[in-house]
Amino acid sequence: VGTRIDSEEALIARFLAPLAEGFAGGLGLRDDCAVLSPVAGEDLVLTVDAVAEGVHFLSSDAPEDIAWKALAVNVSDLAAKGARPIVYLMSISFPAAPEADWMLRFTDGLRAAQQAFGIVLAGGDTDRRPGPLSVTITAIGSVPAGRMVQRTTARAGDLIFLSGTLGDGALGLELARDDTLHANWGLTESEGRHLLHRYRRPEPRLRLREALLSCASAAMDVSDGLAKDLGSMCRASGVGARIDGTRLPLHSAARKALAADAGILGRLISGGDDYEILAAVPASRIADFRACAVAAGITVTDLGVFDTEPVLQFRAPEGTIMALESGGWDHFGPR
Amino acid sequence: VGTRIDSEEALIARFLAPLAEGFAGGLGLRDDCAVLSPVAGEDLVLTVDAVAEGVHFLSSDAPEDIAWKALAVNVSDLAAKGARPIVYLMSISFPAAPEADWMLRFTDGLRAAQQAFGIVLAGGDTDRRPGPLSVTITAIGSVPAGRMVQRTTARAGDLIFLSGTLGDGALGLELARDDTLHANWGLTESEGRHLLHRYRRPEPRLRLREALLSCASAAMDVSDGLAKDLGSMCRASGVGARIDGTRLPLHSAARKALAADAGILGRLISGGDDYEILAAVPASRIADFRACAVAAGITVTDLGVFDTEPVLQFRAPEGTIMALESGGWDHFGPR
Repeated sequence: VGTRIDSEEALIARFLAPLAEGFAGGLGLRDDCAVLSPVAGEDLVLTVDAVAEGVHFLSSDAPEDIAWKALAVNVSDLAAKGARPIVYLMSISFPAAPEADWMLRFTDGLRAAQQAFGIVLAGGDTDRRPGPLSVTITAIGSVPAGRMVQRTTARAGDLIFLSGTLGDGALGLELARDDTLHANWGLTESEGRHLLHRYRRPEPRLRLREALLSCASAAMDVSDGLAKDLGSMCRASGVGARIDGTRLPLHSAARKALAADAGILGRLISGGDDYEILAAVPASRIADFRACAVAAGITVTDLGVFDTEPVLQFRAPEGTIMALESGGWDHFGPR
Repeated sequence: VGTRIDSEEALIARFLAPLAEGFAGGLGLRDDCAVLSPVAGEDLVLTVDAVAEGVHFLSSDAPEDIAWKALAVNVSDLAAKGARPIVYLMSISFPAAPEADWMLRFTDGLRAAQQAFGIVLAGGDTDRRPGPLSVTITAIGSVPAGRMVQRTTARAGDLIFLSGTLGDGALGLELARDDTLHANWGLTESEGRHLLHRYRRPEPRLRLREALLSCASAAMDVSDGLAKDLGSMCRASGVGARIDGTRLPLHSAARKALAADAGILGRLISGGDDYEILAAVPASRIADFRACAVAAGITVTDLGVFDTEPVLQFRAPEGTIMALESGGWDHFGPR
């Protein structure tokens, strides 16, 4: 057993303050508050998400990965709004005084994520209480004034685009829980690593920013599964959607898993943890959206179209048309 | 047993969205993010604090009071910085699906606090997980650009001012846990109510804003006890402090409790939950600070002086001088 950090002051000074070094308004975490001077002509975009052991990550996950993911899920929300990340505040609840080694690894993960996402720690709060380890992050980004891409503004006729590939995060979680699936699905070592990496180290699609700001009528990130999140977007926008199951963008690993187990299709569509971006793009902007995404090095796929009829229709690869239920991953509802 | 709210969407639409009605950028909580258009010439002040059942409030506390306190402790941080509250984001973790009646009462408390403090809900996150009910709030306020009152900038020679009265919150907590103290301390009914109210419904000293902005060289709120928080301010500012124990501002209820039990003095000095403001005021600004506080209807008392020698000296009422230990309430350290 290593050294445990028993005082909040030591925790801040030794482990957390270094993460605030790139932001003068964080005041070295020596104040109760941080100060942010907004840039003229920009709006601030605000989001908060909590992750807890046993619900959003596994107790066996590496501290570096827990840290990365806690920050990534928030930055992913900013990315979907076309926002540039600025700073974040973090509240951590520990069930017991953390070990120095664990904190070192946790802050290493945060540092790597900060550098990858261009965001800096501005302030926070730590305490100890019974219950699972939990990390609540409020992330702040910026967009040109009046330009935040909302999720309530998709229109019938807009195409439905998805970045990256679908379902890797959900399959990665299955693999992390049961490594016999590696062989059952017939994955190469690198395919297995890919799925696990996608589950543990989601990468917010920040490079899609220009494409979203200039071409999308609505967007959100897919964190709770395509079915549920597309359903939310449809209800919020007062539209429906038709998805073409032959167009789902699948990684070779997901294709192998699906070939080995046809039941996986449902989990690809309803599984969480993708952190890809779902965007509504009007017909007149499609070519520009694609060009912008290519320039950013992000694959985007049109899956279908938003519709006036307020239902989610899924046309399965073999031609069956079915109503898609919003059976995504609900962090609130019963397990 | 009443109706339980089993879906996050219902929880948001029915209970939380109405709290965001005063803020257009909250988008009716129908987006994952909120948008804030900063006012030119103002800085934003950011703070986060979590409260959890069993640590920061009692399971027997009323939902209205839990809600009020969760918001008040954050707004108190803004008040100490001279900031005007704007919006807040809230992440709630429920150990089980909440009952509709509990949510109604909780949101009633939030609504009352919002109106009292001039702040509006902008966004949030809810989930269910094992462990205590916890509420994590990020509050955002504004100050004129470059004017945030920090806690690291107290100077030797500045007077130490405290708003309101000392220790009522800590005594209120003792009373809430053991109502025989009411008789032991010889309190009138209204004195007992006063102490309980101070524990359950702290009132951020927002009206001290002008006094702080125009006169204080440093300030912070007293949430973890005078001894600990003054110690933090001294260490952060590289100064020490001398406190005159004859000058502690005590409510008649606290005076009675102290007369009945001399051991209470230590708890008045180190007990948490006051949410008063501790300010450093240079000699040249004392008259203005007092005048400004009087105009705002807030009592302020000078307790002593910041000093070059980096220790906390406490001169007890009977004349003994002792080093004050930072024995405040540490939400992180062992209980």
